[in-house]
Amino acid sequence: MIVILRSDVTDAQIDHVLERVEALGFRAHLSRGTYRTIVGVIGDEQKIRVDTLEAIPGVAQVVPVMPAYKLASREAHPQASIVDVAGVKIGGGYLAMIAGPCAVESAEQMDIIAGAIRAAGANILRGGAFKPRTSPYSFQGLGEEGLKILREAGAKHGLPVVTEVTDPRLVGRVDQYADMIQIGARNMQNFNLLSEVGQTRKPVLLKRGMSATIEDLLMSAEYVLSQGNSRVVLCERGVRGFDKVTRNLFDVAAVPACHALSHLPIIVDPSHATGRPDLIPACAYAGIAAGADGVHIEVHHCPEQAKSDGPQALRPAEYAEVMVQMRRLAEIMGKTISVPPGANS
Amino acid sequence: MIVILRSDVTDAQIDHVLERVEALGFRAHLSRGTYRTIVGVIGDEQKIRVDTLEAIPGVAQVVPVMPAYKLASREAHPQASIVDVAGVKIGGGYLAMIAGPCAVESAEQMDIIAGAIRAAGANILRGGAFKPRTSPYSFQGLGEEGLKILREAGAKHGLPVVTEVTDPRLVGRVDQYADMIQIGARNMQNFNLLSEVGQTRKPVLLKRGMSATIEDLLMSAEYVLSQGNSRVVLCERGVRGFDKVTRNLFDVAAVPACHALSHLPIIVDPSHATGRPDLIPACAYAGIAAGADGVHIEVHHCPEQAKSDGPQALRPAEYAEVMVQMRRLAEIMGKTISVPPGANS
Amino acid sequence: MIVILRSDVTDAQIDHVLERVEALGFRAHLSRGTYRTIVGVIGDEQKIRVDTLEAIPGVAQVVPVMPAYKLASREAHPQASIVDVAGVKIGGGYLAMIAGPCAVESAEQMDIIAGAIRAAGANILRGGAFKPRTSPYSFQGLGEEGLKILREAGAKHGLPVVTEVTDPRLVGRVDQYADMIQIGARNMQNFNLLSEVGQTRKPVLLKRGMSATIEDLLMSAEYVLSQGNSRVVLCERGVRGFDKVTRNLFDVAAVPACHALSHLPIIVDPSHATGRPDLIPACAYAGIAAGADGVHIEVHHCPEQAKSDGPQALRPAEYAEVMVQMRRLAEIMGKTISVPPGANS
Amino acid sequence: MIVILRSDVTDAQIDHVLERVEALGFRAHLSRGTYRTIVGVIGDEQKIRVDTLEAIPGVAQVVPVMPAYKLASREAHPQASIVDVAGVKIGGGYLAMIAGPCAVESAEQMDIIAGAIRAAGANILRGGAFKPRTSPYSFQGLGEEGLKILREAGAKHGLPVVTEVTDPRLVGRVDQYADMIQIGARNMQNFNLLSEVGQTRKPVLLKRGMSATIEDLLMSAEYVLSQGNSRVVLCERGVRGFDKVTRNLFDVAAVPACHALSHLPIIVDPSHATGRPDLIPACAYAGIAAGADGVHIEVHHCPEQAKSDGPQALRPAEYAEVMVQMRRLAEIMGKTISVPPGANS
Repeated sequence: MIVILRSDVTDAQIDHVLERVEALGFRAHLSRGTYRTIVGVIGDEQKIRVDTLEAIPGVAQVVPVMPAYKLASREAHPQASIVDVAGVKIGGGYLAMIAGPCAVESAEQMDIIAGAIRAAGANILRGGAFKPRTSPYSFQGLGEEGLKILREAGAKHGLPVVTEVTDPRLVGRVDQYADMIQIGARNMQNFNLLSEVGQTRKPVLLKRGMSATIEDLLMSAEYVLSQGNSRVVLCERGVRGFDKVTRNLFDVAAVPACHALSHLPIIVDPSHATGRPDLIPACAYAGIAAGADGVHIEVHHCPEQAKSDGPQALRPAEYAEVMVQMRRLAEIMGKTISVPPGANS
Repeated sequence: MIVILRSDVTDAQIDHVLERVEALGFRAHLSRGTYRTIVGVIGDEQKIRVDTLEAIPGVAQVVPVMPAYKLASREAHPQASIVDVAGVKIGGGYLAMIAGPCAVESAEQMDIIAGAIRAAGANILRGGAFKPRTSPYSFQGLGEEGLKILREAGAKHGLPVVTEVTDPRLVGRVDQYADMIQIGARNMQNFNLLSEVGQTRKPVLLKRGMSATIEDLLMSAEYVLSQGNSRVVLCERGVRGFDKVTRNLFDVAAVPACHALSHLPIIVDPSHATGRPDLIPACAYAGIAAGADGVHIEVHHCPEQAKSDGPQALRPAEYAEVMVQMRRLAEIMGKTISVPPGANS
Repeated sequence: MIVILRSDVTDAQIDHVLERVEALGFRAHLSRGTYRTIVGVIGDEQKIRVDTLEAIPGVAQVVPVMPAYKLASREAHPQASIVDVAGVKIGGGYLAMIAGPCAVESAEQMDIIAGAIRAAGANILRGGAFKPRTSPYSFQGLGEEGLKILREAGAKHGLPVVTEVTDPRLVGRVDQYADMIQIGARNMQNFNLLSEVGQTRKPVLLKRGMSATIEDLLMSAEYVLSQGNSRVVLCERGVRGFDKVTRNLFDVAAVPACHALSHLPIIVDPSHATGRPDLIPACAYAGIAAGADGVHIEVHHCPEQAKSDGPQALRPAEYAEVMVQMRRLAEIMGKTISVPPGANS
Repeated sequence: MIVILRSDVTDAQIDHVLERVEALGFRAHLSRGTYRTIVGVIGDEQKIRVDTLEAIPGVAQVVPVMPAYKLASREAHPQASIVDVAGVKIGGGYLAMIAGPCAVESAEQMDIIAGAIRAAGANILRGGAFKPRTSPYSFQGLGEEGLKILREAGAKHGLPVVTEVTDPRLVGRVDQYADMIQIGARNMQNFNLLSEVGQTRKPVLLKRGMSATIEDLLMSAEYVLSQGNSRVVLCERGVRGFDKVTRNLFDVAAVPACHALSHLPIIVDPSHATGRPDLIPACAYAGIAAGADGVHIEVHHCPEQAKSDGPQALRPAEYAEVMVQMRRLAEIMGKTISVPPGANS
């Protein structure tokens, strides 16, 4: 780390800074410039905190030179990770095509949708059983019954399934039914939940929080990785923006930015990013062209009757059309859409 | 709700919209303007969802005319609520002066700080035992041991105590020790946790999430209220901003904006809002002048040795000075700083 | 427009609202719901202002049903506009490939760069002669000398040229030399400048301001259009974001969002959007895949010696590589890269 | 400056960095840490640009240790500046109380409003003659006629006047009539306009742009100062936020943050910051409590008939009430409200 001292720092304060740095087990390297004095802190930066140094009198600013995450970093693991979800590969040239309704509503609904997305070429089925809703009065999901329906629809149509967990007490139950466990945007910094899914051995789909920086996202991934679960897939799903023309602001540059900093795969979710079905196709294509390792799209056969988030879903026929173009883009990008092992075609 | 139809809507689509609205148990009122046709939806708006209507073909936009929260609204409860925290009143003219370290570190630390803030005039002691840290490698708090130390320091110095809970499994344990339970910004939309604290009968300090709108904040309060716990205190602690000169962007207008929409008290937290001790006093004063029902400030007797968030804490002598000015402002604003019942002065 | 009245509105206030609406030359249509009373304002919405209605006592909210821009709207002009820049077509299936240095520095520099980008397949040359710099101490551009150099480099290599104007007093001079006039992000709401370029007959490249909504951008386009100049090309170049990992936040969804609302072409500028050469290619591809009508990339043969914004430029060889992939994407998207008429190949 | 090299930097690249730094006239100081190599750049930092260094191969990050502004900095001028506007002092303990309508509409309107605000205790009269409107179809102001009316109303009621200039060609004309020249938020980075007002000798009211950082704001002040005009007053008027409950996000912490970095006075504008008359009083009080050097409030005797921005204005009686409380706050803050010299009371 580099500690920049205040322009009015006293000699006694400089001495105190040097003492503190050494007391913390680091070497200090003093450098006096024309206007400012700087202290280089030499040693394992991950064992010291920016704020500890910032609180020392006379310190103006502390500049870390290493990222605060280790296991998630590209430096620690130069090759792109490939995460395997029940036979479907994500990352390192393989694309996840995740589709399905916002919420599991009934066995019939899931059967129709799973069949349709399977036919269109999706390789993972999604559906929420425990829904984090902003209103306590909204439909909260079918719970365990929803997990069973999802599991069966996946099995019947040869698709691995992903579903969200919102409570550390439910991780065991979700783990029983799901091939991949989703952490939603609102829980990206629910660290107890992250630790709990880190203790399973299931792949984790970690959605970026609405106000999370890339570093925040990678630190949350680090929570999962540090528990021994290395199978994390990141997801860009839009951040808070000031323009209400879209629900969120789709940060497509997060895709190459994450790839530069981390070996973990990253997919995009244009459904949540835009909240507008008419913008989903363009943003899905943009995601693939930017190098994303997959696309997550909500699909519902009758959006106006959906119990949750109807307006951000594509109809099956629309999804099938989008898949045609995504396939052509995947080819140009040199990517493969992994065929699910349960596929009978 | 008002449903605005697309300019190219067909008559068949209009008929379908009217049918759907009526099938949902509402009356529809059609109005054709020069450029647009509009459908007024008449009935209990809280029983219908914006997205259900938005997903109907031909619909351009849905404008709700009622807030989505009920119990938290000023309309439902025109008088300002006063929340009682073990004898300390918050709201309706009473100010909470909450102070203490970010994290409970030791009995000695808590004794020093509790004594100092009590002498300065604070009326509630804070201290974290379970710390939500962005890094899995940072100090995570002393856990139950921390709760005990906090409880004892409060008891000795006659101060009610508030501490954060981050996991629904720990609500019972925290409830045993704390006089007020804090939900942190990162958990503001951890709905399972909100429901769990809603089932206790302890006052809840609900911090605004970094990208939460006022409506989001009030919807989260609604989760607690809807479980039967009506003792919620809101807290503005800064939202995500683009200027790194402060850690967050202190949204002081949230204070009068919440007062206009809701009867719940709202306090401000200039420590987290700014992350800079030199800016804490000005923002604390601004909060009181804006009508806040209290001020939450982190205080540590030795910030450079703090195990968490040292640089955003005031030293006890600084806090005492700030209290002098806050008291003068409180007087001008016609507010009373409730004296804790355990106070022996 | 729809005027939503306050829940505590009085009958006298309602009468006053109706009178005011009619005094303004509109018809008012009253509708009483369960909780709220609503007034539909029927007439030419572009002749009335939201804020006039909002200031009437008893009014809670005013919801416009029409966009505030006319000439820029898709409704007014359903077909996509094609803007012709000295023979190079932009929009309606034609892609602008704009490249060149941030600032014109010398004739030699411009010759090298123009030759390189022409060979790579660019069809418009850019270069700044009047530079809007945040610091008064930074290089401010070569002025008219720069315009001449740009003009000559363009002529020699058969490329139309685009350059920024920052001052209404300079519009005439820039008009003499440039084939297309750029309005920079910082001047997007410099309405006098917009009016001035609206009075030329040159195509205008209008960059989105850092905190401009799509509606703000289209209103600025409307300024140009309302002066009789219909040749406006929009440019998404990133908005202010909270994550410093990129200079700005590239809002790729603005591309399809603008296409939905307006007939004007929109291109993307990944150089300014990201400020990082390693992220430019991915964002350029994303832009084309999202349907952009062109890509603007800064190219410099020696970024470390650039007098302005070196780090966001690609080197010519890097640009050539990116062009190869952009061409493949253009093909998939069914787009044509217009060949400049001066091209001798 | 501190140049942090990439972890994979080669020795040849390090040598090249050192050569470049020295070729630019600076001394380089190499320091090899455990993970990173760092180059300290010693010399007058204001003569070198971050981006020049960032573009050198092998460089990961450049950290400036000095602000990019000089004349505006607190370091250059430790004492708070007092700006004198025709006898009314702003800064260094003196408060500007600026009030008046958004736009000058008629002599009668200005007479009524000027009389009312003067009686309430305001010390500067505002009114726009050249209005920067987002729509080309909105009222654009009365132009020079408006300047005359403003001038006369000020003279009659003994109040100095401030008005906005939006075009460098109009600076001379505005200078003739106004005691203080306003640069609006949309023109904060209109550098030609800044230079032009820098060449007058009139005090300048410089409003913060909607997406401007504090550093951006101070750099714009530097433009004015660098032309020899040292009489700049900053104005915080809200930045772009994500919550539409207020028009902008009032960044009250900008007040103490500017005071820490600069000697220039800074006032607040709760009218533009909130866009809601019911929130103006609370934000005005917050501004004074945060240490602002004045408050700018729009006042109109009949907001519903205002030709511009009616809903963000207070009525004269409301303003008078707010002034009573502002005066009490000013006293607690140890501030004086300068009495205009033309005052006959």
